[in-house]
Amino acid sequence: MAHPVRISGVLSPVVTPFKRDFTPDAARFVRHCKWLLAHGCSGLAIFGTNSEANSMSVAEKIELLEALVAAGVPAKSLMPGTGHCAITDSVALTRRAVELGCAGVLMLPPFYYKGVSDEGLYRNFAEVIERVASNRLQLYLYHIPPVSQVGISLALIDRLLGRYPGIVAGVKDSSGDWSNTKAMLDAFAARGFDVFAGSEVFLLDNMRSGGKGCITATGNVNPGPIDRVYREWQSANADDLQAGITATRKIVQKVPMIPALKAIVAHYAKDPHWRTVRPPLTELAHDQEAGLIRDLEASGFAMPGIAN
Amino acid sequence: MAHPVRISGVLSPVVTPFKRDFTPDAARFVRHCKWLLAHGCSGLAIFGTNSEANSMSVAEKIELLEALVAAGVPAKSLMPGTGHCAITDSVALTRRAVELGCAGVLMLPPFYYKGVSDEGLYRNFAEVIERVASNRLQLYLYHIPPVSQVGISLALIDRLLGRYPGIVAGVKDSSGDWSNTKAMLDAFAARGFDVFAGSEVFLLDNMRSGGKGCITATGNVNPGPIDRVYREWQSANADDLQAGITATRKIVQKVPMIPALKAIVAHYAKDPHWRTVRPPLTELAHDQEAGLIRDLEASGFAMPGIAN
Repeated sequence: MAHPVRISGVLSPVVTPFKRDFTPDAARFVRHCKWLLAHGCSGLAIFGTNSEANSMSVAEKIELLEALVAAGVPAKSLMPGTGHCAITDSVALTRRAVELGCAGVLMLPPFYYKGVSDEGLYRNFAEVIERVASNRLQLYLYHIPPVSQVGISLALIDRLLGRYPGIVAGVKDSSGDWSNTKAMLDAFAARGFDVFAGSEVFLLDNMRSGGKGCITATGNVNPGPIDRVYREWQSANADDLQAGITATRKIVQKVPMIPALKAIVAHYAKDPHWRTVRPPLTELAHDQEAGLIRDLEASGFAMPGIAN
Repeated sequence: MAHPVRISGVLSPVVTPFKRDFTPDAARFVRHCKWLLAHGCSGLAIFGTNSEANSMSVAEKIELLEALVAAGVPAKSLMPGTGHCAITDSVALTRRAVELGCAGVLMLPPFYYKGVSDEGLYRNFAEVIERVASNRLQLYLYHIPPVSQVGISLALIDRLLGRYPGIVAGVKDSSGDWSNTKAMLDAFAARGFDVFAGSEVFLLDNMRSGGKGCITATGNVNPGPIDRVYREWQSANADDLQAGITATRKIVQKVPMIPALKAIVAHYAKDPHWRTVRPPLTELAHDQEAGLIRDLEASGFAMPGIAN
């Protein structure tokens, strides 16, 4: 087996810093990735929804990925998002991720056409797997219907897992629907399919049901406490720990998530550059950011060791 | 003025032929584009929704665009779709289209993130315009909320038109809602904003209200009769002509549009290669195709001069 031990724990879909002209800022990206790995994250799901990945070209993502590895971020900690609307784009980024030794890839379905069939989605994933043609590929399916509008059904997972066991490795379930996550666990966990909750709100439930951790936006700013729930999920105070991270999550998601995460990093790192988002997103309004920081401060939130 | 005469009439979002291995088939693409221009299309809105444009990489699209121009298809007849989720992708394809002298570009908003603000969409389009930095750019906005889920509001058009007059040239309205098309005409036609209906079902209404034509999927297979409505919209039998093309449209859209168009071309050109679609789409089932062709035959439908 190329991957006897798969990645597990708390993964962050790392927010991507941009310069004033919207070009990706590799130096700040490396710095934030290293801070995350040093403060609770087991891995980095770079190029996720919260990374504004779909607002970047394939070439820009490959450049950032190479910059991370060149800077000493272990490829074995990386699970880049590599799913695009075009098969050729998905193949290009997935292939590079495998060549660099990434732990896995997190793959969106093609999301432009709506109401497509499971047969069409199966062909998409199968074609990518066949073209990448590597048993080092660990493919995690990315189910996020609230954004992509195109989902990953249980029937599709069953078919892909049957055809590509050992390569189809798991899922990130960002449906926000615990009953769906539970159904995935019940149906596939015993077949070596690793289920990550798409939010830390479901982390304890996921661990108690045989899941492998979570891949969560707020991992960008609160990795330590979330990791503690992951490590101590069998302890007596696990529910209290869970309540703490859920409370932080609820503060952050009162405002739009991506600019909120960037505003938090900007504030605690004292680095205003972090506030930049690429269109079509917009930064938080001043009063939104002020309210967010005030609520976080009141809750005792901290980002130990974050600095420009 | 760089474009004293803007494109108008019937434009087809040209279906893209793929080889068995899903690579774009430039030779068949050129042949179909030339047939369309010879049989009623005033222009070619290549790389539209019905072209499976979002299932291709930017590099694949640039290659096809260059192949068309090299084969003698007039750039002044081309309105390629150039809108992507990533600004850098939109800029790359738009820039190449302008360099080649295309009549215009038809630009989707970034469509991954949902519920984005007009401010964010304005920044997206403005950033592309500023980076392309050419007064030869004629930008047509592409409003297709049933697919993209992200739309172009009247307020956004007003703002873009105010800031970039002479560059923001018009819209394709594929909302399927005539009252929206009418509102665009009423608000902006007098300001030099050219409104194309997104379906020939609304062609006569659009012409009677000051529109410039239509950009329609079925233009791929029925360009002559649609063009006749465009040319004879002021004639006494215009309503009858409109009823004829609407009837054909209704036959085609009983099954999924993109594989239906390809099946029709495959059938009438006696060229089975045309049936190939890229995942996540799938070709029609045999009985769907048989029923479609039977209904078209019964209606007197023909594709004069189409041949492999």
